[in-house]
Amino acid sequence: MQPKQHAEQHDDILLESLDDQGILRLTLNDIARRNALSEAMLARLRESLDRAAVRESVRVIVLAAEGSAFCAGHDLKQITAARQAPDRGHAYFTTLMTACSGVMQAIVDNPKPVIAEVAGVATAAGCQLVASCDLAYANPQARFATPGVHIGLFCSTPMVALSRNVSNKHAMEMLLTGDPIPAERAAEIGLINRVVPAEELAAHVTGVAHQVAAKSGMTVATGKKAFYRQREMPLAQAYEYAAGVMVENMLARDAEEGIDAFLDKRAPQWSDQ
Amino acid sequence: MQPKQHAEQHDDILLESLDDQGILRLTLNDIARRNALSEAMLARLRESLDRAAVRESVRVIVLAAEGSAFCAGHDLKQITAARQAPDRGHAYFTTLMTACSGVMQAIVDNPKPVIAEVAGVATAAGCQLVASCDLAYANPQARFATPGVHIGLFCSTPMVALSRNVSNKHAMEMLLTGDPIPAERAAEIGLINRVVPAEELAAHVTGVAHQVAAKSGMTVATGKKAFYRQREMPLAQAYEYAAGVMVENMLARDAEEGIDAFLDKRAPQWSDQ
Amino acid sequence: MQPKQHAEQHDDILLESLDDQGILRLTLNDIARRNALSEAMLARLRESLDRAAVRESVRVIVLAAEGSAFCAGHDLKQITAARQAPDRGHAYFTTLMTACSGVMQAIVDNPKPVIAEVAGVATAAGCQLVASCDLAYANPQARFATPGVHIGLFCSTPMVALSRNVSNKHAMEMLLTGDPIPAERAAEIGLINRVVPAEELAAHVTGVAHQVAAKSGMTVATGKKAFYRQREMPLAQAYEYAAGVMVENMLARDAEEGIDAFLDKRAPQWSDQ
Repeated sequence: MQPKQHAEQHDDILLESLDDQGILRLTLNDIARRNALSEAMLARLRESLDRAAVRESVRVIVLAAEGSAFCAGHDLKQITAARQAPDRGHAYFTTLMTACSGVMQAIVDNPKPVIAEVAGVATAAGCQLVASCDLAYANPQARFATPGVHIGLFCSTPMVALSRNVSNKHAMEMLLTGDPIPAERAAEIGLINRVVPAEELAAHVTGVAHQVAAKSGMTVATGKKAFYRQREMPLAQAYEYAAGVMVENMLARDAEEGIDAFLDKRAPQWSDQ
Repeated sequence: MQPKQHAEQHDDILLESLDDQGILRLTLNDIARRNALSEAMLARLRESLDRAAVRESVRVIVLAAEGSAFCAGHDLKQITAARQAPDRGHAYFTTLMTACSGVMQAIVDNPKPVIAEVAGVATAAGCQLVASCDLAYANPQARFATPGVHIGLFCSTPMVALSRNVSNKHAMEMLLTGDPIPAERAAEIGLINRVVPAEELAAHVTGVAHQVAAKSGMTVATGKKAFYRQREMPLAQAYEYAAGVMVENMLARDAEEGIDAFLDKRAPQWSDQ
Repeated sequence: MQPKQHAEQHDDILLESLDDQGILRLTLNDIARRNALSEAMLARLRESLDRAAVRESVRVIVLAAEGSAFCAGHDLKQITAARQAPDRGHAYFTTLMTACSGVMQAIVDNPKPVIAEVAGVATAAGCQLVASCDLAYANPQARFATPGVHIGLFCSTPMVALSRNVSNKHAMEMLLTGDPIPAERAAEIGLINRVVPAEELAAHVTGVAHQVAAKSGMTVATGKKAFYRQREMPLAQAYEYAAGVMVENMLARDAEEGIDAFLDKRAPQWSDQ
């Protein structure tokens, strides 16, 4: 079953719709540019992600795309145009890279889980976008590539996200050859969670999103934040930190309610629902 | 062939038996509580692990369980009861988390290799227990889950061990959905080493344990400690550290004996055998 | 198609040949010692790698081997002989370990990508050699092992490279049992990129090497260096660093040429070609 969509903007490069279960669907909709991460697209994504982060009605974010390309990475025409500046583009490139890395980190730092629904080709910073999401599902036609090496511009920022998802040799093969990999291979190496038949992809992602949206938002936000923080710590420090997170979580109202409900064999009522 | 077991305790929540080849088998035996990591179970595990660490006759530790659940994680009734205290359980939760993380680290820090033999469901801190072991084998019926999100209590300490075994997206899918994964999937994503037919599981684990027990205990202890330490270092520092470990190991009597035996085509005699 | 080889040395333990597309093929050729990393072999490898690093005509390095063993690790006879010294070999072992770790790091730090072509058995430091390369392909007969535990000498330096390629439990199973794994399993766990039929292996590796050699050398060197550096940083720092690398790369002549060529639908002309 498809979620009930409350469409908010239609003639725009980023469509937003929020269903009644709190799933915010962000749809890249700049088909002519293969959903490139242009300045405008980055600004819109950042704005939507930041707003969703603090919006109580949003519980889970789905990142999808219109057209055959999920996202083609940076807008090469904008990059070329910027070389006309007296500084040969230095200031522009710095701003662009900061904006792009900012969007990726706004996904990781977002208290709401972000799920990529990939029905097309995700390349360069588009592949990074998928790698940056908490979860990712793709149809069998989807492909993934970090092809910057073809144009003399190594995918150095995409590889930050890529190499935190797949092992070194798999990342290096993508980065050094620039070759696209099919969805099935992306699932094998851990870049996405799994491949779903094309006609079931949207329903599958919506199903996972609804499942996560039915949990306590406080619990999910606490856990997501702790996940990425502990991941960068040595083991002993990670345990010390996570144990503290766990104690706070145990003292919270939603854990008390959740455990009571479990022991009473009834459905829990979260404080934010 | 099953090892000769010298049963030591039978009416207890943690059975211990040591065979004549140095395999200490610790069997969770609190079937009524689905082998929950109650205060008592954690205390017993810690005690057994610490004793095994310094006991010369123990060469390898196997962690197994009676009943259909390998281990169900924390005892929710104990957590609920603790809320009656004036501090709403703060002190109790802190003690509990410290004890639990302590057991997990006592596995990692144990000079003897620890192998999980999973013939049932391992959830929450039970899944963490499996993830914390050096090796893990499961039968096809085994399942693994970090379901805390269902009860408002994110599996924040289990994820410390989980995320050091499986890649980010696989860990996040388990953590955010709470869904159990079958043994075959656990093997695919690296949470366990492999799936073994149910009727062969105990024999397989015992076989691996005997194989490791036949090595020099000094060598195994040196290597295990170095493994987890170097894993947390940058590459250059890891090489400097590991090269030092290797030099000490080369100077040790067991390496001299092992290399001599290899060159002479005879079986080595380790100093601790 | 096999590359045109300009053989340079033939009666030596390390054969070097450079084809007209910049592929430097280093072939271990000490069959009698199963291509052991003897003092002499380490010295030759280091020298060749260091020379290739600064030699403009070299674009990609392939590491291959003659005989049924790709590389058997250290030379145990040299280790045993060194025990006759007054310090029981301490100085020698230290020098040996430093040389060996130096070769491994000379692969990682080399601005030219290094590809392992494994047609035989790679054990101990030989397995480390494969793990240290940027890419690795093997035929179905290849096997991989860290068998030091059999001779009382844990593979503590090999595990530095191994554990940066495969997950903890897979690494520990190889290290604790010493058992060899077949090529197919090595591909599954991420130690190598993939298995290629024996009769196609050399052509496949040469094909990948030519593909990478056709890229801008500046771009490849920039990306490879950034890959391993950012891998050891926390996420925010990695993005800050990689964004800086990306800006510099965008300003470089080869990125300008590459992007122009792409927008003009023509082949790029790199500055180093």
